[in-house]
Amino acid sequence: MHILLTNDDGIEAIGIQSLRIELERVGRVSVVAPDRERSASGHGITVHKPLRVETVSFSGGKVGWAVSGTPADCVKLALEGLLVGQRPDLVVSGINRGANLGTDVLYSGTVSAAIEGMMAGIPSVAVSLTGEDHLDFSFAARFTAKVCAKLYREGLAKDTLLNINVPDLPANEIKGVQVTRLGTRRYDNAVHKRKDPRGKVYYWLAGEVVDVNREPGTDLAAIAEQAISVTPIHFDLTDYRILEEVRSWDLNRER
Amino acid sequence: MHILLTNDDGIEAIGIQSLRIELERVGRVSVVAPDRERSASGHGITVHKPLRVETVSFSGGKVGWAVSGTPADCVKLALEGLLVGQRPDLVVSGINRGANLGTDVLYSGTVSAAIEGMMAGIPSVAVSLTGEDHLDFSFAARFTAKVCAKLYREGLAKDTLLNINVPDLPANEIKGVQVTRLGTRRYDNAVHKRKDPRGKVYYWLAGEVVDVNREPGTDLAAIAEQAISVTPIHFDLTDYRILEEVRSWDLNRER
Repeated sequence: MHILLTNDDGIEAIGIQSLRIELERVGRVSVVAPDRERSASGHGITVHKPLRVETVSFSGGKVGWAVSGTPADCVKLALEGLLVGQRPDLVVSGINRGANLGTDVLYSGTVSAAIEGMMAGIPSVAVSLTGEDHLDFSFAARFTAKVCAKLYREGLAKDTLLNINVPDLPANEIKGVQVTRLGTRRYDNAVHKRKDPRGKVYYWLAGEVVDVNREPGTDLAAIAEQAISVTPIHFDLTDYRILEEVRSWDLNRER
Repeated sequence: MHILLTNDDGIEAIGIQSLRIELERVGRVSVVAPDRERSASGHGITVHKPLRVETVSFSGGKVGWAVSGTPADCVKLALEGLLVGQRPDLVVSGINRGANLGTDVLYSGTVSAAIEGMMAGIPSVAVSLTGEDHLDFSFAARFTAKVCAKLYREGLAKDTLLNINVPDLPANEIKGVQVTRLGTRRYDNAVHKRKDPRGKVYYWLAGEVVDVNREPGTDLAAIAEQAISVTPIHFDLTDYRILEEVRSWDLNRER
């Protein structure tokens, strides 16, 4: 199994390096990741300027590619440039420092890289560890490597994407794995207005996260219950529920 | 009706200004848009640095806000900062220079702004004009204003988002309106590898667009038939089709 590994915290982050070491037990790993942190980059791609690539040496003599772009750029560049003739069997993104739950996935560079893999017809996995500080990635890395091996054995559909969130707890305190749907989060009081040292106003996006839909069966509920959430994701944003309603409006009359 | 108007081509683009003038016939318009082009910014938000806001004067004595951020930043900042106490009834994003069809919506700053509006519980519209050069936005602007007035009369569900694409054709050559689902596009040969003047390698994302799924009923098919496409969008990326299959894998055994 050949795995393309990327992230959005940057190629030297502990999360991706912990995961690389575990993935190397189950397959060959090519690391193509941003040269620095790209959090909240969303599904951005870099089209108006060139991308630079530098090789980086890891412990154990392995080498990866650091890219001056977003996580989605890394996957595009890997598949169409750096790894031509060596198409990966799996794209893995993470381990992100901090959860990517519910509506977060729309902003998540970590998940966008996996969506890019899936759009290229390669089964993909995004993985995040909840919490922010003093994180221990070792359990999440081992679990993800096992899931990747399992997916490969199961013969994954090429449009599969699994978004995994692991609670930041010792392994023996984690209460199982739940296969979930996405919940809904919102950020309240999301803008701070301040003055700079010269008296000019600036704004900073902030906000307390509020779980709007944390019903049983959602990823938000699973994490609240200290379980691992595994959410299958697709990329068809069509709202089929209201197609017929909108058709009934006869928008041809508005021309 | 109070409309928040934004885009990703920048506040001075002809597309947003054409749309502003038409929207002012059907409601009060607050313009909060990026201070420069932000194409392919995806659903990025700016969390690691401050945002600056400048007022900009338009023709007719109206004033808007130019923001040093992405389209999604503009909507967040408008709703939580600039327009507190004046909640819009509708968020409109566009008119984008160039189509946002099928899988494009995942990369689209234009659509991401409308998703941000919908996530805040406000019905939203994204609108794009196909083509790149010498575009005439006047028909698309008039059509969008009529659709917005219609939506307001219909009493929109607050989680409605309509993604509109208008062919770049004279009004009398446009073959009606189709309410569609998203098709699938892919970009082939997406990376050019070059050498800079100092002999160092760089890469540039490029690629020919390929319509992978342009079946009847998709937005891609509508545009190919020279019709306007109107696609309802939601933000739940859960892949319900494979939830049960993934549950059957019993991932608890991989811990």
